[in-house]
Amino acid sequence: MADSLRPVAGCELGWAQAGIRKTGRKDLLLIRLADGASAGGVFTRNRFCAAPVQICRAHLRAGLPIRALLINSGCANAGTGASGLADASRTCEAVAGLLGCKPEQVLPFSTGVIMEPLPVQRIVDALPQAVGRLDPAAWLEAAEAIMTTDTVPKAASGRCELDGVRVNVTGIAKGAGMIRPDMATLLAFVVTDASVATGVLAEMTRRAADASFNRITVDGDMSTNDSFVVVATGCAGVRPITSADDPRCAQLESAIGEVAHELALAIVRDGEGASKFIRITVENARSEREASTVAYAVAHSPLVKTAMFASDPNLGRILSAVGASGIEDLDPAAVQLYLNDVWVARDGARHPDYREQDGQRAMSGGEIVVRIALGRGSATASVWTCDLSHGYVSINADYRS
Amino acid sequence: MADSLRPVAGCELGWAQAGIRKTGRKDLLLIRLADGASAGGVFTRNRFCAAPVQICRAHLRAGLPIRALLINSGCANAGTGASGLADASRTCEAVAGLLGCKPEQVLPFSTGVIMEPLPVQRIVDALPQAVGRLDPAAWLEAAEAIMTTDTVPKAASGRCELDGVRVNVTGIAKGAGMIRPDMATLLAFVVTDASVATGVLAEMTRRAADASFNRITVDGDMSTNDSFVVVATGCAGVRPITSADDPRCAQLESAIGEVAHELALAIVRDGEGASKFIRITVENARSEREASTVAYAVAHSPLVKTAMFASDPNLGRILSAVGASGIEDLDPAAVQLYLNDVWVARDGARHPDYREQDGQRAMSGGEIVVRIALGRGSATASVWTCDLSHGYVSINADYRS
Repeated sequence: MADSLRPVAGCELGWAQAGIRKTGRKDLLLIRLADGASAGGVFTRNRFCAAPVQICRAHLRAGLPIRALLINSGCANAGTGASGLADASRTCEAVAGLLGCKPEQVLPFSTGVIMEPLPVQRIVDALPQAVGRLDPAAWLEAAEAIMTTDTVPKAASGRCELDGVRVNVTGIAKGAGMIRPDMATLLAFVVTDASVATGVLAEMTRRAADASFNRITVDGDMSTNDSFVVVATGCAGVRPITSADDPRCAQLESAIGEVAHELALAIVRDGEGASKFIRITVENARSEREASTVAYAVAHSPLVKTAMFASDPNLGRILSAVGASGIEDLDPAAVQLYLNDVWVARDGARHPDYREQDGQRAMSGGEIVVRIALGRGSATASVWTCDLSHGYVSINADYRS
Repeated sequence: MADSLRPVAGCELGWAQAGIRKTGRKDLLLIRLADGASAGGVFTRNRFCAAPVQICRAHLRAGLPIRALLINSGCANAGTGASGLADASRTCEAVAGLLGCKPEQVLPFSTGVIMEPLPVQRIVDALPQAVGRLDPAAWLEAAEAIMTTDTVPKAASGRCELDGVRVNVTGIAKGAGMIRPDMATLLAFVVTDASVATGVLAEMTRRAADASFNRITVDGDMSTNDSFVVVATGCAGVRPITSADDPRCAQLESAIGEVAHELALAIVRDGEGASKFIRITVENARSEREASTVAYAVAHSPLVKTAMFASDPNLGRILSAVGASGIEDLDPAAVQLYLNDVWVARDGARHPDYREQDGQRAMSGGEIVVRIALGRGSATASVWTCDLSHGYVSINADYRS
């Protein structure tokens, strides 16, 4: 993977072992950005959002160029009140002091246990380590530094050409959601060397999140710390994109979107206890929102997820989840259900030719496509998820002990 | 338990072994009612609601006195289309033929696997067995006959005095919801010998459901078959209640409500894989609806439920669930969190005096009270739930095999 991760001009990465929760592991990552970088962010809507999320929002609002991202694992700095905010600010001040910028030019991120105080001094003491290691090629190490119980680091690179100039896009993520709720957080950072005005980048970031991280499940346990940030360093030597009408927007957005999508799927595949990778596609809905609501209802159903784990074609559970998804005027007799290439339910009832062994065969693989046609319109949406296994319970029951 | 279950005048119960899914087990229950009984019902809002649910609704709308309830386990008769409706109707016709009433006077109920055809002939053939066993004292056997993977039968009796006359209320239930989603159904039947006009009884039934079965979780997997029916036989010799303004309404509703509440809690306590019985009370909300929304958000959180299973006081997960519950203007700094008698979070952050061993002690018991004060108003709501354990995954992954 390290070979395929391309450096991004104007971006260096350095990790440290700060001993935040345990000693001897990478738990701090500093990303230094060239002067003039712009950033867009999408954050959790949880009302108990963590202190660093609040600080990130404030620093982005201040509108200064962003010079650094600081990420720690082991402590979420959420449910920590006013002292949590002061702690997050102190880490920004420490970074600013080392890099020679303003604290408002630093974005802080945390992941870990909620309602415990951030060990600020340990972070401050470890920062020089991270600065000493700053390296534009250290993407894989960076991905490792933000891992919690992830079993593999998650990183991806993409590229595109703008005005004949090669632009790089590289990103890293750590997993969360239903998949990996132990650390209760999804963090993802994507950096490009294109130059994009802040307002345009903010919109691009939102759309990229909607098409990637907002398409993986995610159990309703919206984390206190979920953050997705896209940075444009402007170091590729390409004329700045300053308007959403710029035709190069679509090209860059597509490259960013692909990296985000790849990171999102990597999170599902590495889901704790996950033994199946499942795509749920809902078709023929009245709107994309409706399609997505139904897909989520199926993806969140513990009944469907445990049946997937067991490779048990107890497929009525899927129809039940569709019926419970809240579409008041849904006509069950218009609903079709397919599992991979198997037509399971026709017009809302078991297909006369459906044989249980066909369902069983479809479910026994590691990758499963559930396709549901609602017979109401032409909108489509897909959601990616995994099964619910003993591994999930073990991880989440035992993780702090 | 059998001793404490009081017969209700005008109600007899008879079971049979119809071999619907497996042979040699009670899987059919017939409840015969005296002529003139009224009934009220609350049913699933799942759009893929089962054929018997559709038939029940139609028969209740017909407005004739109800003469019998017929309940089978082993097959849900859901996702079965037009033939499922015809099948459910045929069972009502068979009962009507045996009891000498109209098919519209029979209410059918099913629970079991979805999307499989109802073995109507086996049910019809077994009905004479059930008729032959009709007995006003057979409440415990009746509770056993509707069990699926329930480990204990669930039945309760209450009473009240109306106009100086003793009125009995007895009910049975089988479990479902997040707790016991294997059979994906909650069925509950409560019978009283009071006399209540249909319209009044319908409202009473709705309120009793809201205060009992709608207060236990329930995982969003709203079943295709959930049904709660209250029957008033009118055989106690008490003047009929024909208006909601009748002061006796409150007395009877209270007795019905207590039986329903006891049945609902019995379902949570017997939840598959459940090792903890958890009450979540939300106080100082702006409205009961808001309190209930927050309580459900906590009760449905897999993160909270797995922490409960592990007796791990990872209590930030509760704050996170509160924050994710969708109250846009919630002020985290006004939120208090208590676990039994332990004040865990004060003003949205860890209480300075909170010690982890106190949280640990509170969580190690089999019964846990989570109390959350929102600091927004004076409304309160409670929800009862259980933990999420390996047992849950096993049951739901393996149940059909």
